[in-house]
Amino acid sequence: MPTPSPDERDIDRIRARLAASPRPADLAARRARVDALGANYPLPDDVHVQPAKARDVPAEWTATPAADRDRVILFLHGGGYVSGSLASHRHMVAQAGRESGTRTFALAYRLAPEHPYPAAIGDALAGYRFLLESGFAPERIALAGESAGGSLAVATALSLRARGMPMPGCLWLSSPWTDLALTGGSLDTKAVVDPLISRAYLAELATAYLNGADPRDPLVSPIHADLAGLPPTLIQVGSAETLLDDALRLAGVAAAADVAVELEVWPHMIHAWHLFYPEVATGRRSLASAGRFIRARLDGASGT
Amino acid sequence: MPTPSPDERDIDRIRARLAASPRPADLAARRARVDALGANYPLPDDVHVQPAKARDVPAEWTATPAADRDRVILFLHGGGYVSGSLASHRHMVAQAGRESGTRTFALAYRLAPEHPYPAAIGDALAGYRFLLESGFAPERIALAGESAGGSLAVATALSLRARGMPMPGCLWLSSPWTDLALTGGSLDTKAVVDPLISRAYLAELATAYLNGADPRDPLVSPIHADLAGLPPTLIQVGSAETLLDDALRLAGVAAAADVAVELEVWPHMIHAWHLFYPEVATGRRSLASAGRFIRARLDGASGT
Repeated sequence: MPTPSPDERDIDRIRARLAASPRPADLAARRARVDALGANYPLPDDVHVQPAKARDVPAEWTATPAADRDRVILFLHGGGYVSGSLASHRHMVAQAGRESGTRTFALAYRLAPEHPYPAAIGDALAGYRFLLESGFAPERIALAGESAGGSLAVATALSLRARGMPMPGCLWLSSPWTDLALTGGSLDTKAVVDPLISRAYLAELATAYLNGADPRDPLVSPIHADLAGLPPTLIQVGSAETLLDDALRLAGVAAAADVAVELEVWPHMIHAWHLFYPEVATGRRSLASAGRFIRARLDGASGT
Repeated sequence: MPTPSPDERDIDRIRARLAASPRPADLAARRARVDALGANYPLPDDVHVQPAKARDVPAEWTATPAADRDRVILFLHGGGYVSGSLASHRHMVAQAGRESGTRTFALAYRLAPEHPYPAAIGDALAGYRFLLESGFAPERIALAGESAGGSLAVATALSLRARGMPMPGCLWLSSPWTDLALTGGSLDTKAVVDPLISRAYLAELATAYLNGADPRDPLVSPIHADLAGLPPTLIQVGSAETLLDDALRLAGVAAAADVAVELEVWPHMIHAWHLFYPEVATGRRSLASAGRFIRARLDGASGT
């Protein structure tokens, strides 16, 4: 075995901490645990937070002083469609906005099992429409999501296309969960390095969100979608994820459909590692890379 | 059908030109045709070219005025192991060096059928050793290749690993041909948009290079290799390539082995589109992107 690098030691500390506080069975306790992950990290003093509503959907703006007020990241958090919130992801979303030079608009879309598919997609569409009505040019919007929120971002883009609505300037997807039928080989091959996102856990989440819908529906599992016409897309994934193959297959499907897709594989990172960026240097670098991508794609919108 | 973008029109012109001068059956004529592709493009006045030898292997340096003389791209041209040369790729390699801020060292490795596998790998290793002996720090060397040269670059890295030799700072692979058993689905699904790199043509090349060797040998088809320990790797591929799946699968195999791999899919581009960069804006952007990657990875070598 080679000696772990500083980057591996960073993430090993997080892995050990997560393993030490197992996921509770109770739904409310589970949601509280995810929220506490984010609340652990204080928000930098220069981040301005403002509560908002997109039609009926609770949301919030963040901005750092250098943010271009004409540009925004519409962010859809992770949590397997059943947990996650504005609180759990605020620190990370704010940092993504800083790196991108944009404001951010995070959405507290409705969660399963109370609100199964397609409630979350409707809320994400409402969020996008709200930004258009607020005066944002579509090409100045980065549509982004993590884990379940990554697929939700793709489903939102597909829904925009189906409605003849304008596409956002780009998509940014981190650790996307793109196959609710759970057929990815890395669910098994990476189980030993990613015990938290197990097949059994994912199956439970899928059941809650699908509520009887087909797990191969392109709007819940975009690896089955025709992605033609999607804007430039960045997919980031850790190599120590059971969901590694979900990201790889989405990249393949996007590539086959002539999407300008970029895939970044970050060695040894676990699912949704960006959340831990204050303690994990690779998380900071991943956010910086996403920021460069978003900045360049929203720049391109100017036609220069 | 949507209207073709300017980028698509660029590449459609190239596609039409290539289709109008079919590949000759005669080997010498075929090699001359590939060389003429490159000779079509005048070399910018500020590119300094210097013939060299790496042990017995013909080679050449290029440098632009701003090149850091401590950094180099070791370049392995494409041409299916049977054609391609210093002449065919000189203009493109020089531009890659300009974008990367490095010198380049291109290698005229021995070609099949006269010199089948593993002659080319031996020559590439000789080229790398020559650079080390010339005083380059391994982490200041970008090992790069296009098409067959892309796999050759991976095979070279695997051979270095097997010998306990130091890895280069990064790998840059454009349109890599990674599966000589020809099992990629895009060989069929992309045949209509990429008639030049047909299954029949690839089969002929594979036969010449393999000379009876197993097409699943990891040193000829790196999708069958354990890529653990490879340096950060950029893979660039066009979405209109029959070899699209060769790139996607290599990215997957690298990801599974914890390699820091980045994949860029360039919509509508054909095999080895970088060669046409003087006439194709996307080719220029692809080289610029490779340059940013190489610059950042060789910068990282400084430990700062």
